[in-house]
Amino acid sequence: MVVFPRDRDQAIDLVRFAYRQRIPIVARGAGTGCAGGALSTRGGILLSFERMDRILSIDTELRIGIVEPGVITEDFQKAAEEKGLFYPPDPSSVRMCTLGGNVGHGAGGLRGRKFGTTRDYVIGIEAVTADGHLLSTGSFAPSEQDDLSGLLVGSEGTLACIVTIALRLLDRPESMATFLLVFSDAAGALRTAGGLLGRGMLPAALEYMDAGAVRCVREHGSGALPAQDGHVLIAELCGENERIGRQAGLLEELARAEGALSVRQARQPRERSDIWSVRRALSPAMAHAARRKISQDVCVPPEAVGRLLDRVGEIGGGRGLTVITFGHLGDGNIHVNTMTDGSPRQERQARDVMEEVYRTVLSLRGTLTGEHGIGLYRMPYLAWELSSQTLEAHRKVKAAFDPGHLMNPGKISDPPAAKPVS
Amino acid sequence: MVVFPRDRDQAIDLVRFAYRQRIPIVARGAGTGCAGGALSTRGGILLSFERMDRILSIDTELRIGIVEPGVITEDFQKAAEEKGLFYPPDPSSVRMCTLGGNVGHGAGGLRGRKFGTTRDYVIGIEAVTADGHLLSTGSFAPSEQDDLSGLLVGSEGTLACIVTIALRLLDRPESMATFLLVFSDAAGALRTAGGLLGRGMLPAALEYMDAGAVRCVREHGSGALPAQDGHVLIAELCGENERIGRQAGLLEELARAEGALSVRQARQPRERSDIWSVRRALSPAMAHAARRKISQDVCVPPEAVGRLLDRVGEIGGGRGLTVITFGHLGDGNIHVNTMTDGSPRQERQARDVMEEVYRTVLSLRGTLTGEHGIGLYRMPYLAWELSSQTLEAHRKVKAAFDPGHLMNPGKISDPPAAKPVS
Repeated sequence: MVVFPRDRDQAIDLVRFAYRQRIPIVARGAGTGCAGGALSTRGGILLSFERMDRILSIDTELRIGIVEPGVITEDFQKAAEEKGLFYPPDPSSVRMCTLGGNVGHGAGGLRGRKFGTTRDYVIGIEAVTADGHLLSTGSFAPSEQDDLSGLLVGSEGTLACIVTIALRLLDRPESMATFLLVFSDAAGALRTAGGLLGRGMLPAALEYMDAGAVRCVREHGSGALPAQDGHVLIAELCGENERIGRQAGLLEELARAEGALSVRQARQPRERSDIWSVRRALSPAMAHAARRKISQDVCVPPEAVGRLLDRVGEIGGGRGLTVITFGHLGDGNIHVNTMTDGSPRQERQARDVMEEVYRTVLSLRGTLTGEHGIGLYRMPYLAWELSSQTLEAHRKVKAAFDPGHLMNPGKISDPPAAKPVS
Repeated sequence: MVVFPRDRDQAIDLVRFAYRQRIPIVARGAGTGCAGGALSTRGGILLSFERMDRILSIDTELRIGIVEPGVITEDFQKAAEEKGLFYPPDPSSVRMCTLGGNVGHGAGGLRGRKFGTTRDYVIGIEAVTADGHLLSTGSFAPSEQDDLSGLLVGSEGTLACIVTIALRLLDRPESMATFLLVFSDAAGALRTAGGLLGRGMLPAALEYMDAGAVRCVREHGSGALPAQDGHVLIAELCGENERIGRQAGLLEELARAEGALSVRQARQPRERSDIWSVRRALSPAMAHAARRKISQDVCVPPEAVGRLLDRVGEIGGGRGLTVITFGHLGDGNIHVNTMTDGSPRQERQARDVMEEVYRTVLSLRGTLTGEHGIGLYRMPYLAWELSSQTLEAHRKVKAAFDPGHLMNPGKISDPPAAKPVS
């Protein structure tokens, strides 16, 4: 059953009802998640927050927005912008995904290096616990001891259902400079990114797409693509006018020195949105490019991205599968996508690719998911990353919040049910 | 009994022994805490990390330092600096306090607005759980789903004993400009701070000391004090040479326009350390200035600091007690100190001041402790800030980690023992 509460109190009533009847509850935002976290695998109630989509307030003095979980992320960004403020987290599905989903997954996005991820903007949460009580965490103070907020961020609805979110806002940056650079190899893009960071510049975005990703958009998507094929780096600087002007000059110089085939700078908002359209077109294009794909969301120390990409090339190349990589160079969050024709043979090979990539990531002391979450699909690999003691600690926290396994059961560290709940 | 393990394995053995014997364990760094969190109130073992004081590694490529918990914070800052790196968290007790204590308290410090607090630099923790297992959290990747690290930060040894910490480091800023400004009233200092932030400048430090604090250092401490009495604002800019030069000019202009009585800029490292000596001398000076004091560590939205200070003036003034306020304007973390002669009457009045300040802070949607922790002294007030549901959630997490109440028992949300453990 899918239920659409209209406000916090209806959501509380619903969770209480489910608790009394021992019915599982799966919270769901826009359903754009990549790890199956919002799928209801044990029946019960799918609690959709689609209709709890109000921005309750934006306080321009305190720079705090209070929202219901069903607000579309871009709608909130725009509402903040209209008041001269800025909400930095920017997942690439920003036009569809919801703030509740972002918080549930600890969503990252295109501006992570400079501005951090959703986690860094959550200053308070109201959530309904499994037994129907209203938990409220955080305060409006920037420094806070209590970290129950931090525990709920990224918990994918397994601990409580988030019904209200208080988010920190920043002042709108004075200026933005957006560049699309094309290189003949990944190394040029990586050296340019490293060079920027090494010179103390901290771009808001440093987005990489390999040549296969660019080809994929050309063949299966739409977007204001560059004329040449090649590896794309999208860099966006933001800050004070004068500083950005200076940095933009340095960026172009650096990119040319590293062998950029072309350098395009957006001069107007329209051109900026054109540049980003290339990146945003990628996920839909990939969905058309092959019958199936296995998507990974690994994250390594930014300095180790070069080593990771080299290894991914070897792993994929050896099997003759198309492997598309792209991601956020600034914070080392790289998406590796292995395309298959859906045949058992290619599916098996793609799984092998995934597992080899995971092993590489762990050897680089990275993590298997930067922003997409564990959900359902990554559960079998959780034990690759976490020791049994650490997994056990996660299970104890889960049991403390939800002893009856009613909140998004069977996800993340929740062990498979002895028998399915119907 | 006080025990000093020399390494991680000794600490694990000790916790295991205590678990088998059901002996409480209180972890302790340098004992500089302000909330009694490291006091052993129920007997048992005081686990001092003083001799686990090794910096295990500093990886300059990944910009990560790995340390034992007993490392003095300043020693780590210096070790990072020698390698061209920068560890921003800077509690004012930096010369004495330990990194383990900083993590246990989520310590803030002088550079919170620009750089965040200890919490923002912890990327991984090894900790011994109550039953003697080694828990390891986090990874070296900047984006991470798992927030057991976040749960351990600020938990004051009530969930597990931290034995290893991985900390993120930044590149050393190119340039620093440090100013000591004196104003005839608090409003001038606040307007200057607000003006800086409003112009998009983000000082690394914006430290306020009221006139009583300056007088206190003059009478009971040492430090390179300004000639005049008045309210002091210490502002420190850091970043690229050229930018800092420009901002320094703007800062001076702004301060003069807001009526600064004097503006002193450090021209050499020695002068910078002189300026900071004024601030660092304050806590020891206050300890000499009165027989007893009640110290508060409240935090409000930075925009509400003016309202808080006005109200503190009224609350203290009405009772004829000396109330000294100082703190971090950038992140709204203000320390309110009420001095008493130790008489029951003044003690009662000081408690009244504290409680009125707490009420004011909560009405401004702030929090009762920004960085000092709950420990022992703030326990009675936890229920002022947290709802019973939220307190209950904290207790459940505590019970999940430490069902036998062996880890720093009787602190934070741990209810008083039915009978004391001996």
